[in-house]
Amino acid sequence: MGVGAWRPERVVTNEEVCQHIDSTDEWIRQRTGIEARGWADAGTSVVDMAVHAGAEALAAAGVEPSRVGAVIVATVSHPYQTPAAATQVADRLGATPAAAWDVSAGCAAFCHAVAQAADLVRGGTSEHVLVVGVDKLSDFTDLSDRSTAFLFADGAGAVVVGPSDTPGIGPTVWGSDGSQWDVIRNRTSWLEHRDAVAEAVAWPALQQEGQKVFRWAVFAMAPLAQQAIDAAGITAGDLAAFIPHQANMRIIDKLASQVGLPEHVAIARDIRTTGNTSAASVPLAMHRMLAEGQAPSGGLALLIGFGAGLSYAAQVVVLP
Amino acid sequence: MGVGAWRPERVVTNEEVCQHIDSTDEWIRQRTGIEARGWADAGTSVVDMAVHAGAEALAAAGVEPSRVGAVIVATVSHPYQTPAAATQVADRLGATPAAAWDVSAGCAAFCHAVAQAADLVRGGTSEHVLVVGVDKLSDFTDLSDRSTAFLFADGAGAVVVGPSDTPGIGPTVWGSDGSQWDVIRNRTSWLEHRDAVAEAVAWPALQQEGQKVFRWAVFAMAPLAQQAIDAAGITAGDLAAFIPHQANMRIIDKLASQVGLPEHVAIARDIRTTGNTSAASVPLAMHRMLAEGQAPSGGLALLIGFGAGLSYAAQVVVLP
Repeated sequence: MGVGAWRPERVVTNEEVCQHIDSTDEWIRQRTGIEARGWADAGTSVVDMAVHAGAEALAAAGVEPSRVGAVIVATVSHPYQTPAAATQVADRLGATPAAAWDVSAGCAAFCHAVAQAADLVRGGTSEHVLVVGVDKLSDFTDLSDRSTAFLFADGAGAVVVGPSDTPGIGPTVWGSDGSQWDVIRNRTSWLEHRDAVAEAVAWPALQQEGQKVFRWAVFAMAPLAQQAIDAAGITAGDLAAFIPHQANMRIIDKLASQVGLPEHVAIARDIRTTGNTSAASVPLAMHRMLAEGQAPSGGLALLIGFGAGLSYAAQVVVLP
Repeated sequence: MGVGAWRPERVVTNEEVCQHIDSTDEWIRQRTGIEARGWADAGTSVVDMAVHAGAEALAAAGVEPSRVGAVIVATVSHPYQTPAAATQVADRLGATPAAAWDVSAGCAAFCHAVAQAADLVRGGTSEHVLVVGVDKLSDFTDLSDRSTAFLFADGAGAVVVGPSDTPGIGPTVWGSDGSQWDVIRNRTSWLEHRDAVAEAVAWPALQQEGQKVFRWAVFAMAPLAQQAIDAAGITAGDLAAFIPHQANMRIIDKLASQVGLPEHVAIARDIRTTGNTSAASVPLAMHRMLAEGQAPSGGLALLIGFGAGLSYAAQVVVLP
């Protein structure tokens, strides 16, 4: 029903990233399609970011905060075991006493939260649900890690899901492969960190086995995209936009090509100047496509999220 | 459709807890009703605990892991920002490629996850959902904190939610009050911990403002319990059991008295020997009541979870 976004003011160039790693602007552009990304400042929290995006989404949807029954925050970078970021987001938006919880499903979390929101509305549990994808990955990135330092970024995107006479969110196809839980993860667990603090262990930044993730994303996610299209009862030709998780431009290109999207389908390439913002990437890209007129409000979009877990979820939605 | 549980072998007495705090067995019993609690050993992870409870629940429900469409793990003590514990749980149970995610909603998380599971099944998204409440709070407890050291404990409980001709899970009434986000929380955020490691800052254990939580739980949760009863279209007299979050025996007693439960309603008092296991407490108590014959399979139970956030959720369910 509405989408909102928050992007950091501070734009970090590839040149700046290369101060910490042995790489070049050209290499990063070629390998990832990223020219720049945003990093939030130290004083801006995941909750702050989510509140900005959420407020915009509610205003765009014309939904008063008091009519929100649930606030779901998809994130992996809220720096507390408890409480959930969502409770503070709900309170600051004036959505109290909405139910509020956080969802952990890596870069696929936003699409997981959309699935939950859709069923909560269908099941009559909530009339309106605010779904926020937000990550401040700069807090959990090792700036000297050549495989991730240029990828990870900060941002927040939000949508409002509410009642509709016609289905606006198609069936979700989703899953996980926990046998690969270690290919994208914190370098150490918090407990290992605790036990090793005496030896000044490194911050448990996120790490990933890039090649494994790349191959998995390209080969396993294309069939999933097709399943989501089939489940929605449409064909690829009915789509106005393809909005995959913004992990890497090469993954986006390969996926689009394997799904066999017609020329008229706009493809989200927000990663170029935004980087990989994990749970925020899909709604941020959606926001930009709508704002810049690359995709029309009311058009069909295929969303697909995938990441740490490994976890994945895809659905066709009517763009707000 | 089925319930499973895992409890630590190691039983920790009040006397043992009092080695670290200036308190007594008598004081702890009087103030909390807790005589003992279980702490898992260092080699047992949240995932291990969840797998044990989940396997039992699936077996009890007679549901093959391959028929599980989603695994939801409710926890605040999985010691990774990402990936979710649920992906490993799904994999180790043979439920891959089920969708899998973790829910953060403090001690209310299990009831939040049950609500999600119910709507996922109703909405046709999943046929069977495995819901696990699991916490290893001993990892995040300051043993020298006089207000929490005797409360927090470890355990896992799980249920299977699946299709039914008659409604087995009543409407969930739930909410949050993020203006009180600081009354139960990690002492510091992970980022504060990072920045202060040089000064050997304390581990960001959980802390709570006990008096505030107590008053809130007693005065705000009784009306919520009544709402869940009303939403299910029953009266308190129709209940066979009342299974509140096991935070404190005095809260349980006050709640039961304020809701005005008839004498025949069995009240879960698992806290006495189990302590407060956060997201695991409701399914653990359910498991014990069924195993010990305090409540009948097929009977109606009022579940209510409440905790950090502040978050809360309540629903009437048919006992598996």
